[in-house]
Amino acid sequence: MKNHITFLCTLLCVLLIGTAGVAQELEYVDGTTLTQVNKVHPTARPYSRLEVSKYPDLSKTVRRYYSHSTGVALVFRTDSRTLGARWTTVGNKTSTHYSALAQQGMDLYIKRDGEWVFAGIARPQRSDTHSATIVKNMPEGEKECLLYLPLFDELKSLEIGIDPGSRIEASENPFRHRIVVIGSSITHGVGAGRPGMAYPAQLERATGFEFINLGASGQCKMEQFFAHVAADCEADAFLFDSFSNPSAQQINERLDAFVATIRAAHPTTPLIFLQTEVRESRNFDEKIRKFEDDKRAASEAGMEKLLKADRNIYFINPGMPLGSDHEATVDGVHPSDLGFARMLEEIRPQIVRILKKYGIK
Amino acid sequence: MKNHITFLCTLLCVLLIGTAGVAQELEYVDGTTLTQVNKVHPTARPYSRLEVSKYPDLSKTVRRYYSHSTGVALVFRTDSRTLGARWTTVGNKTSTHYSALAQQGMDLYIKRDGEWVFAGIARPQRSDTHSATIVKNMPEGEKECLLYLPLFDELKSLEIGIDPGSRIEASENPFRHRIVVIGSSITHGVGAGRPGMAYPAQLERATGFEFINLGASGQCKMEQFFAHVAADCEADAFLFDSFSNPSAQQINERLDAFVATIRAAHPTTPLIFLQTEVRESRNFDEKIRKFEDDKRAASEAGMEKLLKADRNIYFINPGMPLGSDHEATVDGVHPSDLGFARMLEEIRPQIVRILKKYGIK
Repeated sequence: MKNHITFLCTLLCVLLIGTAGVAQELEYVDGTTLTQVNKVHPTARPYSRLEVSKYPDLSKTVRRYYSHSTGVALVFRTDSRTLGARWTTVGNKTSTHYSALAQQGMDLYIKRDGEWVFAGIARPQRSDTHSATIVKNMPEGEKECLLYLPLFDELKSLEIGIDPGSRIEASENPFRHRIVVIGSSITHGVGAGRPGMAYPAQLERATGFEFINLGASGQCKMEQFFAHVAADCEADAFLFDSFSNPSAQQINERLDAFVATIRAAHPTTPLIFLQTEVRESRNFDEKIRKFEDDKRAASEAGMEKLLKADRNIYFINPGMPLGSDHEATVDGVHPSDLGFARMLEEIRPQIVRILKKYGIK
Repeated sequence: MKNHITFLCTLLCVLLIGTAGVAQELEYVDGTTLTQVNKVHPTARPYSRLEVSKYPDLSKTVRRYYSHSTGVALVFRTDSRTLGARWTTVGNKTSTHYSALAQQGMDLYIKRDGEWVFAGIARPQRSDTHSATIVKNMPEGEKECLLYLPLFDELKSLEIGIDPGSRIEASENPFRHRIVVIGSSITHGVGAGRPGMAYPAQLERATGFEFINLGASGQCKMEQFFAHVAADCEADAFLFDSFSNPSAQQINERLDAFVATIRAAHPTTPLIFLQTEVRESRNFDEKIRKFEDDKRAASEAGMEKLLKADRNIYFINPGMPLGSDHEATVDGVHPSDLGFARMLEEIRPQIVRILKKYGIK
């Protein structure tokens, strides 16, 4: 009998010690019960950045990219000391240029002394069903949270995990005003280390203004459907990375019509155009160099005309300054986190100065 | 008959136009006929950075990582206007933290006005058999080339493609002296956008000194086998990122023995230790904060003792300064290209100053 009791006590001890090392199970709340920011409008598929069914003229590629959760973030308050996530993605072939973390992962920022401070990542699995602890062992007390969703995939579902018995609630949108950014892969975030490093998200955290990311990788050659989307947006200002992908000829043919369509809907809203970067892929390739020089000349000539005709149009040139060491892109085209930092250091104050004239401050 | 001739002419035109759009086939030379730099010694598997069979006490993980081509580069001269590559990799599971470009791709730099200038990338496929054009449409004339090999895979074969009829030849090692870098994932290059952005490669291009990358992701807790490898190296100086992964206790237990083993082989060679970064993963996680603070305190105490005892030992602290905005890592741990840039801006002049005392200039 004594042996039996000893055995049972030992078993109990082993079980207790065993479970002590295992992280406490989290409780999950559906992401749709929290606040979404950085979206043009609510969408049927809850985490898409645009309701693509409203725009039948979008190309197939842009339709797919605009179904991504790019730029969208959840905001919430919680007193949990742990935050986790379970999420599923539609599944997109991986790129060779960015990591799974940028593609299907998420990153969390928590407000501290008035600043959004990096708190952790939600690391994706090598499948479309993901689960991750984002941050743990946090101090007691309320945290105001901002979670950027994946840059290059469509989210099918998302749940946020908290410690059992703790509280989580939707919070008000912490960002003022609405600035819609329409652009290329550089805006979409190819080259960003994680979702919150795409330059519109960085601008948002730094300024406190809401920046809505409508960048589409390899796209935005000023096709009319991009102008229709812009025309349809409620926005206090627009930022355009529209000179990265079109040829000189496309710029010559399309720029005026692109602006005219937007102006018909937004007669005096500030339209800020960024000159595209000087691509590092041109360093030794004479054909790319010629193509890029022609593009840049065409955008400069086109903008000169527009600037004379419309005093609410702006052209930031250089619009994507990357320094002089040729080291700030991932692949010769897409700025890395270093490229984004160099670019923002120069253009952020210029953007802020322009917006201020319109009471956006 | 006239109809037949018209048909044949049309067919001929279609064929000619069709082929005009196709890139000219390249001629390939075996990579082993070119010069390898940034290696401790020649290896049986031609592109590994270390002959792992010489070190039976290496752990299985370190053995795998040291079979990678991390840090190794080919140097050659060519008058080709196009450069391409065909290569095969052993195949490693992809990480969620870095891109396929960093893992299995390559990047090319060409000397211009005495500087190594980024020229292009060799983009990997989603398999272990890769082929890519790296750069084309280059001007006539000789180019001095530096091609960094994949960071996180073992190369089985590599061929360099040039225009038919053009010339390619092994060139002399363009780098002076030999500095061996032993360290963690931060040295290995997790977080670098492409192979040549790992910080030892950046130091090499900036200083003209040869930096040999012996970083091993998640490793380098000052186990004796790392000291044995260092003891065995011919080196003009050593750089250690050896405080990123061990705990405070491991630092207390291992630092003196680690240095003693190296000193037995290299009595007066400069040993430069980098203090590890202040991890962003500690921003809200109190447990990580404590662990990291203890680690940093242990390395400071340990180094203080060593600095008093040996005037050829150096401690750069902060060794990995990442700025104050909490935005310079990919995931809270690994510096991104932005993190490497901030870190090198501070520590490069310090490293150069130390090396200069030893005639390394």
